[in-house]
Amino acid sequence: MLIRKDRLFTPGPTPLLPQAQAALASPALHHRTPGFREILDKLRENLKYFYGTSNDVIFFASSGTGAMEASITNFFSPGERILVATAGKFGERWLQLGKAFGLTVEKVEAPYGQTVPLSKIQEALEKFEDIRGIFFQATESSTAVRFDTEGIANLRRRIRPDALMIVDAITGLGTTELDIDGWGLDLVIGGSQKALMVPPGLSFISVSEKAWERSKTAKLPRYYFDLQKEREALQKHDTAYTPATSLLVGLTAALDYIRELGRDNLIRNAQVLAECTRQAMEALGLKMFAEVPADALTAVSAPANISSNDIIKKMKESFSAVVANGQGSMKGKIFRIAHLGYYDFTDMIGVIGALEIVLSSLGHNCQLGSGVRAAQTRYMELTAVEPAAAVR
Amino acid sequence: MLIRKDRLFTPGPTPLLPQAQAALASPALHHRTPGFREILDKLRENLKYFYGTSNDVIFFASSGTGAMEASITNFFSPGERILVATAGKFGERWLQLGKAFGLTVEKVEAPYGQTVPLSKIQEALEKFEDIRGIFFQATESSTAVRFDTEGIANLRRRIRPDALMIVDAITGLGTTELDIDGWGLDLVIGGSQKALMVPPGLSFISVSEKAWERSKTAKLPRYYFDLQKEREALQKHDTAYTPATSLLVGLTAALDYIRELGRDNLIRNAQVLAECTRQAMEALGLKMFAEVPADALTAVSAPANISSNDIIKKMKESFSAVVANGQGSMKGKIFRIAHLGYYDFTDMIGVIGALEIVLSSLGHNCQLGSGVRAAQTRYMELTAVEPAAAVR
Repeated sequence: MLIRKDRLFTPGPTPLLPQAQAALASPALHHRTPGFREILDKLRENLKYFYGTSNDVIFFASSGTGAMEASITNFFSPGERILVATAGKFGERWLQLGKAFGLTVEKVEAPYGQTVPLSKIQEALEKFEDIRGIFFQATESSTAVRFDTEGIANLRRRIRPDALMIVDAITGLGTTELDIDGWGLDLVIGGSQKALMVPPGLSFISVSEKAWERSKTAKLPRYYFDLQKEREALQKHDTAYTPATSLLVGLTAALDYIRELGRDNLIRNAQVLAECTRQAMEALGLKMFAEVPADALTAVSAPANISSNDIIKKMKESFSAVVANGQGSMKGKIFRIAHLGYYDFTDMIGVIGALEIVLSSLGHNCQLGSGVRAAQTRYMELTAVEPAAAVR
Repeated sequence: MLIRKDRLFTPGPTPLLPQAQAALASPALHHRTPGFREILDKLRENLKYFYGTSNDVIFFASSGTGAMEASITNFFSPGERILVATAGKFGERWLQLGKAFGLTVEKVEAPYGQTVPLSKIQEALEKFEDIRGIFFQATESSTAVRFDTEGIANLRRRIRPDALMIVDAITGLGTTELDIDGWGLDLVIGGSQKALMVPPGLSFISVSEKAWERSKTAKLPRYYFDLQKEREALQKHDTAYTPATSLLVGLTAALDYIRELGRDNLIRNAQVLAECTRQAMEALGLKMFAEVPADALTAVSAPANISSNDIIKKMKESFSAVVANGQGSMKGKIFRIAHLGYYDFTDMIGVIGALEIVLSSLGHNCQLGSGVRAAQTRYMELTAVEPAAAVR
């Protein structure tokens, strides 16, 4: 038995920022105190920075699905028609949520691994005059597909300007450029255990003025996930219900780090790591599962005669590295490596190098070191570390 | 600016074990309490396990040099003759200590990068009948050279059975097989920030019965580093002076981990990582600095036209990885990568991959990925992960 450090390469939870980890271990504090009110005020501002928006960003003690639910119950009335563009397990969650709350759900769909073409979304928007909301994922984590958020926003503006744009950006935030104010994204949903580098337990939602206006007439029942109530509480430097204090204190430290690093650099970091990883996978003779790949994570199709179950099992057994399997019908067929949040290039070299050994031991015909080399070569190009000698 | 995680590849301090880090952050405890007495008792037993000895292991709040001093002041009298076998900066520390305390110091020496031949030690032992102690390093961290501890122990037994064997094993413990009881190593010195995976601030020394006997007649003055006093205190579940409680609590967690991993596996881990790293460096066209390399760390000669200062600077700037420079006259000529303590193979892939980029950018003619590949190949051989396909 050798030392094997536990390493998460899953698209959430992601590795904790050390400063956030230290803050999470702070002594308990009470939430109805001047000290905590200051934390809340700072969080409000720093969450806007992370989002890149001037809209309010409201947060809940819940997983991301809680904020997804809030984006329905606060803005719609029973029977209203919505459009869901779905191409994966998280798109399907929009369908389930819409049905659970009695909305009339129209669906435009693409097979796993593909994105929903703008033409199909356009068609649906033109067909149904009473579409009140357009729901999709900025990046669909189950397939690692990127949606054309700007393209969908343009269609909305042109065809159904009254419909709300609701974007699940749980893995999109901090990995993908989203011009929330410029493109008019009304509701944008995030989660703590992603690019924010803290544990699960917090969800976020940015709310546009247009959405606040809509909420006044929305008749769906809501209580815990009442956005207006949370907004008013925040204006009084408070929260409606007991906040998840330790997570919020950890988040404060993570947002300080993100401010220092720079929001654009956080996004670029994921982009660079994703691009290098894609090059590595191709050099190892593997194919990307996503037609239009996101940078939050990379989904890779397992080689023809190897199950991704075995790849994931061996990565854990041999290297204590947790790589994500496919979900649902994709289980056994793909594996997923995360780039969102607190990862650096050295992490990627490590996971690629380990993967080469695992693939090799499972009978995949690849040259050890060739994936690492492809990643290194691309990294040097992207970061303009100019080699004095030619790179062979 | 991209995310770059701080990573230590220095031969002390080494990365902290996460469980030890959590324990270090425990609330303050008082040392004259039943709870702390239990910790002391457990530490005594677990330190013997880590050392692999039935001798007492005494500890001080001090850096390793403190225990080195104790090994002189507790066992020798002014003017007594000792033999120091030196081949690096830490061997020179024995010379300085011997002089500082008025001993008659005989020196057998080897150039940096080499080990002292047994024949020279034999010659000195035969020449001086009144040698009272033999001092050397199990592994000389400044040059990454391994001494033949067993060979020197055999010479002692045969030629000067009354002389004490004093081994600086600060980087040797947990990286090198040392049969303390079988070979008759009287005093073996350790430090906390090495294979023990906790921060600096604790030193250790195992003391044989023969050494305790000798200490009764030793006339050098001593107060803080009085081993007999500490031994008696430990027997009463106490320490002579205020102990470094938080470090000892951290150490308790680290020793629990080492017990679980197994002492032999801790040593084997360093051996495997060192062997893979040596293969990688050779594949990159680099030469080992040490004639007989230790497994605690690897010292590598910088390529002819590149200063190791630049390699170290770029590793820090580009990857936030801290690799050690040479010390004294070796500065600029070698760099050193640690394997002792809490490192795994994925760490080594990372540092080798980063080093390839740095070397390449400094003009060294090497193929990206070739060092990683050599390390992977050797790793698969050593860990018998049998590839189903041939490794090309």
